Amino acid sequence: MKELNIRLTPIGVIRTSFTDEEVKKSWPKGVSGIIEIFPEFEDGLKGIDGFSHVLIVSWLHKVNDEQRKVLMVKHRRFTRYGIPLSALPLIGVFCTDSPHRPNPIGLSIVRIIKREGRFIHVDGLDLFDGTPVLDLRAITPEFLVKDITVPKWYMELKELIKKYVGDNIYI
Amino acid sequence: MKELNIRLTPIGVIRTSFTDEEVKKSWPKGVSGIIEIFPEFEDGLKGIDGFSHVLIVSWLHKVNDEQRKVLMVKHRRFTRYGIPLSALPLIGVFCTDSPHRPNPIGLSIVRIIKREGRFIHVDGLDLFDGTPVLDLRAITPEFLVKDITVPKWYMELKELIKKYVGDNIYI
Repeated sequence: MKELNIRLTPIGVIRTSFTDEEVKKSWPKGVSGIIEIFPEFEDGLKGIDGFSHVLIVSWLHKVNDEQRKVLMVKHRRFTRYGIPLSALPLIGVFCTDSPHRPNPIGLSIVRIIKREGRFIHVDGLDLFDGTPVLDLRAITPEFLVKDITVPKWYMELKELIKKYVGDNIYI
Repeated sequence: MKELNIRLTPIGVIRTSFTDEEVKKSWPKGVSGIIEIFPEFEDGLKGIDGFSHVLIVSWLHKVNDEQRKVLMVKHRRFTRYGIPLSALPLIGVFCTDSPHRPNPIGLSIVRIIKREGRFIHVDGLDLFDGTPVLDLRAITPEFLVKDITVPKWYMELKELIKKYVGDNIYI
């Protein structure tokens, strides 16, 4: 099983007035923006009003072929806060939310502010303007698993980040 | 923006000894199985030991073109418990986990039982044997948003299901 012959149809597109650089720097808070759903898919939104959060499945169209070969990464964004790169662990991409991964499918949980027809205004967005939207999934309590555990490296990384950045951060 | 020219490379495949019918009937508990990661992607797993849950991004390869046109569905699986179809609301697919949707990308959160190299034994699987795996994402506390709200129809549906099926169920 090598490559898949898959035909994907964007159901919409991300709109934000922020530049790519501003979106990157907004982490972890994210920016505000709009999920524009194309008219032919609007029926799929029936029942969405009242949900506070939605998961956006997107195609990270700016990731290039070289970046798709990456399998291990450091959480490089923390160097911005003064953490030396050498202090960060090298981790498999499947344990991180790095956009550099074999299939750059974005998974972003955002807060719904309001809906105007096929335009959903959201906050907490980590996607660039123009990103193709492949799917939406309203967040239900059942989606949110309980009693999760995480590895030791993850807790240690979190402690390290706390020292530099404070409590109000996530990895 | 009509169709996207996307090239997806499966990073692995789902293995389970259960038939498709058994997988369907296992809902909501799911079945046990194995995520087989192909050798060339194994480095991406570095650091996964210790995570209790992982989100599988998969390609629901048995969904056909007609089923990809579906935009509104009823939660038909509840008719199995005696709930009349007429009592179920018609909801947009973006508010459900129906496999029938414009881009049939599966999102399944499963519990990791153990890992043997590039074979991850899991429980709570809702995927058929042979399903191509596109991506994995270890579940961190930060992924699990808090303080979510849901619409009135969702609470009403949940109450209806409770009456027929009991508490131990999710939608």
